[in-house]
Amino acid sequence: MSGRARGRFLVLEGGEGAGKSTCAATLAREIESMGHEVVMTREPGGCELAEDIRAMLMRDWTPGMPAMSELLLMFAARAAHIAQKIEPALARGSWVISDRFTDASYVYQGVARGLGQEAVATLETLVQGQFRPDLVILLDISVEIGLQRVAVRQDDNRFDRESISFHEKVRQAYLAQAAAHPERYCVVDAAQSLEQVEASVVDALKVLA
Amino acid sequence: MSGRARGRFLVLEGGEGAGKSTCAATLAREIESMGHEVVMTREPGGCELAEDIRAMLMRDWTPGMPAMSELLLMFAARAAHIAQKIEPALARGSWVISDRFTDASYVYQGVARGLGQEAVATLETLVQGQFRPDLVILLDISVEIGLQRVAVRQDDNRFDRESISFHEKVRQAYLAQAAAHPERYCVVDAAQSLEQVEASVVDALKVLA
Repeated sequence: MSGRARGRFLVLEGGEGAGKSTCAATLAREIESMGHEVVMTREPGGCELAEDIRAMLMRDWTPGMPAMSELLLMFAARAAHIAQKIEPALARGSWVISDRFTDASYVYQGVARGLGQEAVATLETLVQGQFRPDLVILLDISVEIGLQRVAVRQDDNRFDRESISFHEKVRQAYLAQAAAHPERYCVVDAAQSLEQVEASVVDALKVLA
Repeated sequence: MSGRARGRFLVLEGGEGAGKSTCAATLAREIESMGHEVVMTREPGGCELAEDIRAMLMRDWTPGMPAMSELLLMFAARAAHIAQKIEPALARGSWVISDRFTDASYVYQGVARGLGQEAVATLETLVQGQFRPDLVILLDISVEIGLQRVAVRQDDNRFDRESISFHEKVRQAYLAQAAAHPERYCVVDAAQSLEQVEASVVDALKVLA
């Protein structure tokens, strides 16, 4: 190990079509210009086991996948992702940017699937102990605009195909999650122009300086 | 649904090579002779999603699968197994015999992998609520004899290939689990002759009469 200071853990959250990938690339360039190595990753996924679990999560199942199985698969993937990718990167001083993390479980499985926040909190403590992101940037956008952006993609999955009311619950749950954790959240209006969104995201980094 | 009484849920537990498959077949014949429909199943597995998770669990991984991921995958599979196979069968009056269930998680992940009983208990409550087997038959056998029996099989997996001390921990943990739950456990000495073992297993059914 080098003697460098431990890295920072940044997470981008938001519904479908909020622009997380574009903003992750912008953040990476900015952080590299600050002299840090950047590791970009995503959830569910980020290591071989977790990517295999991701494929399982994105597939259609008959009968459908129970919501509790979905939640437990998310955390099974997360446990490997933290142990095998995120924690080693932070330990060697790299900054890690993840497209989604545990707040997505609160929002998708806890609220939108109706399992409740307590079930997610129980698993968060079991799997992560006190480990939390240093900064979560929420790209907030209306469901209509978000889904319009996703509609032009070829790679939609069973989450993208959920009802409008499901995606509306997701949006409101993300905003509630941000309000409950102001110490680590930065909410960006993703309906702005791309230049404005990128500027807001870069601005959010200042809290880590 | 027929108006039949709810079925009973039986589980066979034991280390590798204890003879669970043979005893499951014996139990099934006996229960059918009592006039009940029998559904035979196994864990991890028992429905399409859970069998896919089983394949993931049995594979070798580089780097290795974290113990916490293993535990969460077991319960992700179990949630689907209960919802899609066990509970519907019991509801229509069938008796269900499962080759392993949650006690195996206490033993393999809780004790042998060192995650602790509390982690398993937390997940048991989250996934199962108050749902427990009506009868658990533990086929107890020395590690030496058990592994000798497994050695002649072609289908060994990463659990079979664990160290002798791992399998010894498994045996002792099963006996401790049986001692802690005498109300649902029946321990059978699986080193006896096959006839004696089958007779003991059939005898264990009497508590459900």
